Amino acid sequence: MTTKRTIGVLGGMGPLATADLYRKIIEATPARRDQDHLHVIIDADPSVPDRTEALLHGGPDPTPWLIAGAQRLEGAGASFIVIPCNTAHAFLGAVRDAVAIPIISMIDETAAEVAALLPRGAAAGILATSGTVSAGLYQDALAAAGLRALVPSPDAQAQVMAAIAAVKAGDLSRATTEKALVAAYELIEQGAGALLAACTELPLILQPNDIPVPLIDPTAVLARAAVREALAARSLPEGVTPDAIRT
Amino acid sequence: MTTKRTIGVLGGMGPLATADLYRKIIEATPARRDQDHLHVIIDADPSVPDRTEALLHGGPDPTPWLIAGAQRLEGAGASFIVIPCNTAHAFLGAVRDAVAIPIISMIDETAAEVAALLPRGAAAGILATSGTVSAGLYQDALAAAGLRALVPSPDAQAQVMAAIAAVKAGDLSRATTEKALVAAYELIEQGAGALLAACTELPLILQPNDIPVPLIDPTAVLARAAVREALAARSLPEGVTPDAIRT
Repeated sequence: MTTKRTIGVLGGMGPLATADLYRKIIEATPARRDQDHLHVIIDADPSVPDRTEALLHGGPDPTPWLIAGAQRLEGAGASFIVIPCNTAHAFLGAVRDAVAIPIISMIDETAAEVAALLPRGAAAGILATSGTVSAGLYQDALAAAGLRALVPSPDAQAQVMAAIAAVKAGDLSRATTEKALVAAYELIEQGAGALLAACTELPLILQPNDIPVPLIDPTAVLARAAVREALAARSLPEGVTPDAIRT
Repeated sequence: MTTKRTIGVLGGMGPLATADLYRKIIEATPARRDQDHLHVIIDADPSVPDRTEALLHGGPDPTPWLIAGAQRLEGAGASFIVIPCNTAHAFLGAVRDAVAIPIISMIDETAAEVAALLPRGAAAGILATSGTVSAGLYQDALAAAGLRALVPSPDAQAQVMAAIAAVKAGDLSRATTEKALVAAYELIEQGAGALLAACTELPLILQPNDIPVPLIDPTAVLARAAVREALAARSLPEGVTPDAIRT
């Protein structure tokens, strides 16, 4: 039983990061022609209130927007959902409760990949929004995987946020990359054995050859996870016919 | 009344072309932050049967797939639809009949842009699938705009099809570009004052500086048209309140 499932992408946070994920899903799919590719439905509503503002500064709660988007994807026929926004994962519980289809966690998938790369007890550096850092999303997931997490100093973190804002405004220049590198080099000096580009805007301006340690791209990790899930063979319970399964 | 409308993208034909359109929509949107961007819903079902096969070789009719996708977009809340596949426009009439929301024609938008660029009676060269060429989509639209259309010889057309198939298989190399350039230079020698990269795979491997005449990218034209329509102020008929309008 290898019916392909439909990937739902809850996107728009930001739009370029969503386009990046979609491209990485295509590249991660074994295909020689259109019809070998996967059915992908993307709901990219950029009006979702800023996730970091909500977590740190009392901004509007994005949860109702996230739930509405997830329900649109479920209604359109998505088999499961991926969310190309690390910070949005702070609100994942409520969104999971609002739909019947699974949501794959980019955080958990990435932590598993880092754990396969670094020895137990090693440190990974986190480049992310202040919201993601403050919510402890990656610190918790890395700790659960037996790794230590390093986060930037306040000054370096401010440079990361400036780089992310520049990408969201469409500035993918070297100057934007340099802002992110301030924090990257700080974390490497503190002993990070790998860095996580843990805001979906960062892989758009940070490349592996920008730094001397492995750079983990959670967007690429999520793309591979989505393709894996969409293509996964499913064993059917006794008496259930393939037609009864949501595809 | 300037409520932003939601863009529906009926995609997957092929997936890379859909990703290219989405990226071009983002780039064409005036925005400084996520929330300035437009709500885009993409249904990319690559299982739609090959459009050229249906037009030329008796292959399965893609119309039911196109209608199903258009209806999913309408159901999810799209205000209008764009289709980043030139050849699919041969089936546009039936799809338009199946939904209540408008579908913007990439062919008509592109012909209007070429007509603004070239003097009346000038010739434009068409690089497209054999299905698009055979259906006469651009020949008819250019004629209506007062222009002549030039199409490749059978041998050169075969090279265009080989280039398109290579892109669909993920090969964006220079060798793929060279295949398309065989037809491009043939049409330029015949007097084409501009070339249309009129299959959505072609802008992925052909750049303006590859040829000495203007290269029109219908995907970029469609992206600008989608942003224009999404942002267009709408005048309301007497007695109609904004809430009564689908946004």
